[in-house]
Amino acid sequence: MPTAEDLFTKLRDHAAETSYLASASALLQWDQQTGMPSAGETFRADQLAYFSTLIHERTTSPEYGEMIDSLATSDLAKDKFSDEGSTIRVLKREYDRERKIPTAIVAELTRVESLAQQAWVACRKANDFKTFAPHLETIFRLKREVAAAIGYVHHPYDALLDEYEPELTTPEANRLLEGLRDALRPIVQAVVQSPNRAPVEILHRSYPIALQHQFGKHIASQMGFAFHGGRLDTTAHPFCETVGPGDIRLTTRYDEHLFGSGLYSILHEAGHGTYEQGLRSNWYGLPPGSACSLGVHESQSRLWENLVGRSRSFWTWCLPLAKAVFPDALHDVSAEQIFFAVNESKPSLIRVEADEVTYNLHIIIRTELEQELLDERLKVPDLPTAWNERYQKYLGITPTSDANGVLQDVHWSAGLIGYFPTYSLGNIYASCLFAAADKALGGLEAMFARGEFAPLLEWLRKNIHEQGQTRPAATLIENACQAKPTHEPLIEHLRTKYGALYDFA
Amino acid sequence: MPTAEDLFTKLRDHAAETSYLASASALLQWDQQTGMPSAGETFRADQLAYFSTLIHERTTSPEYGEMIDSLATSDLAKDKFSDEGSTIRVLKREYDRERKIPTAIVAELTRVESLAQQAWVACRKANDFKTFAPHLETIFRLKREVAAAIGYVHHPYDALLDEYEPELTTPEANRLLEGLRDALRPIVQAVVQSPNRAPVEILHRSYPIALQHQFGKHIASQMGFAFHGGRLDTTAHPFCETVGPGDIRLTTRYDEHLFGSGLYSILHEAGHGTYEQGLRSNWYGLPPGSACSLGVHESQSRLWENLVGRSRSFWTWCLPLAKAVFPDALHDVSAEQIFFAVNESKPSLIRVEADEVTYNLHIIIRTELEQELLDERLKVPDLPTAWNERYQKYLGITPTSDANGVLQDVHWSAGLIGYFPTYSLGNIYASCLFAAADKALGGLEAMFARGEFAPLLEWLRKNIHEQGQTRPAATLIENACQAKPTHEPLIEHLRTKYGALYDFA
Repeated sequence: MPTAEDLFTKLRDHAAETSYLASASALLQWDQQTGMPSAGETFRADQLAYFSTLIHERTTSPEYGEMIDSLATSDLAKDKFSDEGSTIRVLKREYDRERKIPTAIVAELTRVESLAQQAWVACRKANDFKTFAPHLETIFRLKREVAAAIGYVHHPYDALLDEYEPELTTPEANRLLEGLRDALRPIVQAVVQSPNRAPVEILHRSYPIALQHQFGKHIASQMGFAFHGGRLDTTAHPFCETVGPGDIRLTTRYDEHLFGSGLYSILHEAGHGTYEQGLRSNWYGLPPGSACSLGVHESQSRLWENLVGRSRSFWTWCLPLAKAVFPDALHDVSAEQIFFAVNESKPSLIRVEADEVTYNLHIIIRTELEQELLDERLKVPDLPTAWNERYQKYLGITPTSDANGVLQDVHWSAGLIGYFPTYSLGNIYASCLFAAADKALGGLEAMFARGEFAPLLEWLRKNIHEQGQTRPAATLIENACQAKPTHEPLIEHLRTKYGALYDFA
Repeated sequence: MPTAEDLFTKLRDHAAETSYLASASALLQWDQQTGMPSAGETFRADQLAYFSTLIHERTTSPEYGEMIDSLATSDLAKDKFSDEGSTIRVLKREYDRERKIPTAIVAELTRVESLAQQAWVACRKANDFKTFAPHLETIFRLKREVAAAIGYVHHPYDALLDEYEPELTTPEANRLLEGLRDALRPIVQAVVQSPNRAPVEILHRSYPIALQHQFGKHIASQMGFAFHGGRLDTTAHPFCETVGPGDIRLTTRYDEHLFGSGLYSILHEAGHGTYEQGLRSNWYGLPPGSACSLGVHESQSRLWENLVGRSRSFWTWCLPLAKAVFPDALHDVSAEQIFFAVNESKPSLIRVEADEVTYNLHIIIRTELEQELLDERLKVPDLPTAWNERYQKYLGITPTSDANGVLQDVHWSAGLIGYFPTYSLGNIYASCLFAAADKALGGLEAMFARGEFAPLLEWLRKNIHEQGQTRPAATLIENACQAKPTHEPLIEHLRTKYGALYDFA
């Protein structure tokens, strides 16, 4: 009879081997998006599918389940927030969840999502929601079955949300998002009614791409992203990929005449990247060395992108550096001007182009609609109308077509139901953390003006990164902030910053 | 009872899965050499070891062996040069070979080679053969055990050579190499005694690296390497890596003041690359879709590098293109001058820097010495003296230290015994193929002068690439050339080219 310690060692070995495969899969995907020759596409797609299957088999096999179950009844599981205890708790939750979903549904979802994504690409191009609708109906029907199989307390959405934001319930998510929504709407209105205009022309001047790359790397590195353990490459849709401990890869895209696009993508991805670099590498591939949730991950990217990178004091420090690299474009620009330019706010139709104020309303619309679709308060054929009405109601604008309305995102066709709220949870968590760090460290903005980001990063390392997935997001944030997460610090931040820029109190 | 066809389908599925793993391992290695962040090193090394083990297990398991054995007695194996028959024949040879080597020896070799390589790096730096000697003794002792376990007809070297050049025997390899050696020595002497000097100063002018990269890609692409199925990157030690069908990656290195180094590395690796691109992708991962042997692989790289890229007519075509890219460096240079410059010949100590005439003598020295070490005619402590004497005898020069003598190559410390001759076999095969293609197509040089490389590539596609590993190298070359391989076409080529450059008949 092996001891619990023996079993735990076996679990660690198993996880190490899984991490070798997962890391290879990550590199294959990174490469696919950054430099793979086009003729390699078909083989790579088959290869990635093989790796998915291989990894899935390793973490759903009965032998693996027995190991987890044995550990779950051992003394090692007693402290459920210890490294060992949280490992067992999280892996058991994941294993039980996976095993509850009938294989037939998993297989059908894979097939249906693949077809739905092809249909989505064509339908978005053709502005044809009607052809896409049956695919969406099938996906929501299957997701209802998944939720029923997994089980839930309050709402079928609980079971889906749990995949991305473990242990968060629908009522708790909605409480946070509805508070945010109601407080955001008057801010959006105040911005719209303001006569002030951001001097965005500055950002459309000529910023040579090679220099943007060099400059972005420098800023990310000053911010604390360690390039001896990472890279920065170019891609169509920016992402951050963890290839292994000590190998965290950022990607961005550049437009010579859109300065903010490349830089803020880099700061966003570097935010994700510093989180990955701050995880404990001795627990790589296991919960104590893994990110807590998608929401917490997004809190790190949004914190560095928006709360640091779009702050007034950041530009106090950064503008002289930027002028040295882009003298022609920036010689006549003041810190106050560029600060306003990168903080322009106005309601728009496309989520991924939305600013810091309006972004969360895009997310909240999607979250509300996907909950209504899931519990059938809303029928798929009525979705475009509901979408457009919600845009009018929350943002005061109506999409001119389904292509720039309900068909704009890949998520639903990819089966990602319950994923959207993690974006806004990230923004909420980011402001909670920033306010707590500001209080603990005293005057972050003054530090930024001197280019000092290390104290903030250290605070995040200790309170967030090094905690890994030892506890659920809400507990992690509460421990870090000594208060439960709420939307208030975010609203406070937006009111202060945008109140000053657009002259409202 | 499954039919042979069923079993063969199972074998193909098995090979496809193995190829997904092998391709991931190839990408991990390519990435390690081209762009991996330094902090990723330790994890990557462990990960690559895991992939090796995983792949090794897949192709040495008893179940796999039973499948191969069943197929070997089926009708599909009857025509041993058919696609199915050669698949079975080659895989059975490989399986049997692997199974004969005791696991304990494999494990000890892995351990010993790892230590030997570390020792080699340090000893080469310190010019300290004495400390390295015990490592080399252990490696040769273990290799003797490997050879004994595998079995051989003529010489223990047969069993080692077979890994790199399947089915070639030691007497046959020696017949080719000794013929070459004896014919080369008077050519080297004639070159040394000639008063003519190549105008190498041309190559040391300024060739900006970004332009070298662009130019090298263009030439490789004109030569027939298809970049929609490949890439070109920079590395410390150039190589060509097959990541998958449709994904063949070349690497090179550049020196602003050494024009030939980058360009000829590219042509060399692109030669390997066109071979990989010409293999039948429907047999990817199996012998009919794999390269025949290391010697044949090297024949393709050397053919494009030396017989095409260092020909007079290549420069007739290429110089105007080069002048357009490097006008400052090349404005006063004639085709005849650059042709001579890239064909400078003189005896030198370092193999990897050797020219087309002297290179094979470096290889022959190593091949002779490793055979003598293996059968204990030569003892390791006497190796440096033997090495230096052989250099004096064949090349007329004596190493000034062991660091630029016997310690210069990584091969022996890496356990690569029997690998060296494949370099010279490649040169021999290349000239046999070139002469046959020239005869079949009529006047290759006139085509090169017009930038026409497609007829030669087509001929190689049909006679070499598409044949894969359906037959052993000697048969493949004999079929292609309608004559058994000999050293004579290579000697004929060198005598003609260097006779003209250095004024001897």
